[in-house]
Amino acid sequence: MKEFWSGRIQSITPYTPGEQPRERKFIKLNTNENPYPPSPKALEAIRQGTGEALRLYPDPAGAELVQALAEVYGLEEEQIFVGNGSDEVLSFAFQAFFDQGSEIVFPDITYSFYPVYANLFGIRCRTVPLGDDFTLPMEPFLGGNDGVVIANPNAPTGIELGTDGIRRILEGNPERVVIVDEAYVDFGGESVVPLIRDYPNLLVVQTASKSRSLAGLRVGFAFGNPDLIAGLNCVKNSVNSYTLDRLAIAGAAAAVRDVDYFDARRRQVMATRERTVGQLKELGFTVLPSRTNFIFASHPAVSGRELFSGLRREGILVRWFDQPRIADFLRITIGTDGDMDALASALERLTGGKGPSA
Amino acid sequence: MKEFWSGRIQSITPYTPGEQPRERKFIKLNTNENPYPPSPKALEAIRQGTGEALRLYPDPAGAELVQALAEVYGLEEEQIFVGNGSDEVLSFAFQAFFDQGSEIVFPDITYSFYPVYANLFGIRCRTVPLGDDFTLPMEPFLGGNDGVVIANPNAPTGIELGTDGIRRILEGNPERVVIVDEAYVDFGGESVVPLIRDYPNLLVVQTASKSRSLAGLRVGFAFGNPDLIAGLNCVKNSVNSYTLDRLAIAGAAAAVRDVDYFDARRRQVMATRERTVGQLKELGFTVLPSRTNFIFASHPAVSGRELFSGLRREGILVRWFDQPRIADFLRITIGTDGDMDALASALERLTGGKGPSA
Repeated sequence: MKEFWSGRIQSITPYTPGEQPRERKFIKLNTNENPYPPSPKALEAIRQGTGEALRLYPDPAGAELVQALAEVYGLEEEQIFVGNGSDEVLSFAFQAFFDQGSEIVFPDITYSFYPVYANLFGIRCRTVPLGDDFTLPMEPFLGGNDGVVIANPNAPTGIELGTDGIRRILEGNPERVVIVDEAYVDFGGESVVPLIRDYPNLLVVQTASKSRSLAGLRVGFAFGNPDLIAGLNCVKNSVNSYTLDRLAIAGAAAAVRDVDYFDARRRQVMATRERTVGQLKELGFTVLPSRTNFIFASHPAVSGRELFSGLRREGILVRWFDQPRIADFLRITIGTDGDMDALASALERLTGGKGPSA
Repeated sequence: MKEFWSGRIQSITPYTPGEQPRERKFIKLNTNENPYPPSPKALEAIRQGTGEALRLYPDPAGAELVQALAEVYGLEEEQIFVGNGSDEVLSFAFQAFFDQGSEIVFPDITYSFYPVYANLFGIRCRTVPLGDDFTLPMEPFLGGNDGVVIANPNAPTGIELGTDGIRRILEGNPERVVIVDEAYVDFGGESVVPLIRDYPNLLVVQTASKSRSLAGLRVGFAFGNPDLIAGLNCVKNSVNSYTLDRLAIAGAAAAVRDVDYFDARRRQVMATRERTVGQLKELGFTVLPSRTNFIFASHPAVSGRELFSGLRREGILVRWFDQPRIADFLRITIGTDGDMDALASALERLTGGKGPSA
């Protein structure tokens, strides 16, 4: 095996996404999907697009979606890039802005796709340990690198670095691109999109998968200076002119325009999150402060591995990372109130926190 | 500009897709789309999928589509890869099988995306001139390279190299991957998919965009030895775990299973092609022998540029390549009989071939 593989891929370890169970019915709290359906307007737009027009190529620029984002975010179209999920957008950004052999920097605990991109494209990685409280130390991110990647709020911790912190990092790296991955920002975080006017080195990446309930449609965005957006388009148009299909463009554009639905649903997720944090703290869990649609929690008495397996047996999928410093934590997506009550009951049994009838 | 661009993209020229007009109503014969709608079963599958489930990530492996292809083509699932259009599949193949700095070989006149991929990934290209009749000379493809890419039937010429020719190339490069891009094979060409059992170095790439009328849905396939398929998955899972959205997987799977519809529509396109070839030859055109859903034609008296512009003025879009050897040719997609009658009338006027009332 690997007989015909290029040197580029001989030794890389691809990203492993969270499980998508095909058979048994689970309460699925493992891949940070939204528990609520997409906007009815998005579904209607998709239905409208499901017809003969599918025989035609999509608009390669996805203009309908770019225009919707420009209006809703108050930006120029040249400041916006759209792609096949934020993962693809990030992979284009790594190719567009980080040189082979150069060294980029990101925290030791963050989205585990970053080192995967870097390995494929021959970019070196320097990881900076987060503090004991999982917050980001500033100094190591201020210069001395060829690029910076910050998930904000961070994953899987859920912790947010404030806008002032991002600003300091941008100012500490005026000649390097700083990618701020805001996949989870819509659940209470503060977006730095408004900073793209002031910082030509800032690229902000977002997704329709979480806050717009469209993980199944594969749509991500990037916001930045027109020079950065042109760089992303250069990569895109060198690998696949049409990364977004007609239905994805139409559905995501309608979802972006449906601001009321978006606001109502993300508020609902945040309310459930706070309720769940309370339930878990009552069971003795440590829960990191989350500005996302997931929480990162550990129990003083029961290991992460045991909790993960125990929940799976009870029909609840969460994400567990078997890696240093966080092996006792579970990353738990915020579902409906009902999902989270089931989770709390299961964790109560698994931790012996309270009697079943307490 | 390009202030923050990586060295990788500083000097590349991306691919330019054919125009997708947003305003004026054209007869669109410029991007090799199918004139007929997708299978009604594909549209129904998409409608069925348009609901709450879009909040969930798709199956990263696209198993439903892989299974459909395995059944219809009589293959094992490990011999099949699915991606976001054959362009994306090809870009993954270039990364997976061709080393940086190595030299691959393809004809001087072929799909113009190949050198674009190569440039982005630092692969060197050697182009072999096609013969005066635009057929492929064998010798230059038999060894002495690090990989081979053959569009078969070729684009934009439409000319097919027979299976024996492909077999010779495979045997002349036993330690190199030979990519056979069969984007157009379903319109009368002979597929070499059955050869993947005998040649572990053969990767066959196909698409749902042309023969299955799903250009708007972005679905491509690759067929090959499990080792090659694993290589493609390694690249895919290093850039974007979910390249196909839920609707694309469901729609393409239904389209693949609807073999009767597929056969009826491709026969219709081929019949119209033969009819159009006759019309154009009557007008004095040279038409290369096509096994695709387009024809490549030139006129002895009127230049390609003039014909292209003249047709555009008459509301008919075709593709014209301003490059050596083929600047007098038009690449004309096969539309409906009505589309092609309009084309023939317009060309009659532009070439003065016959009086308008002849």
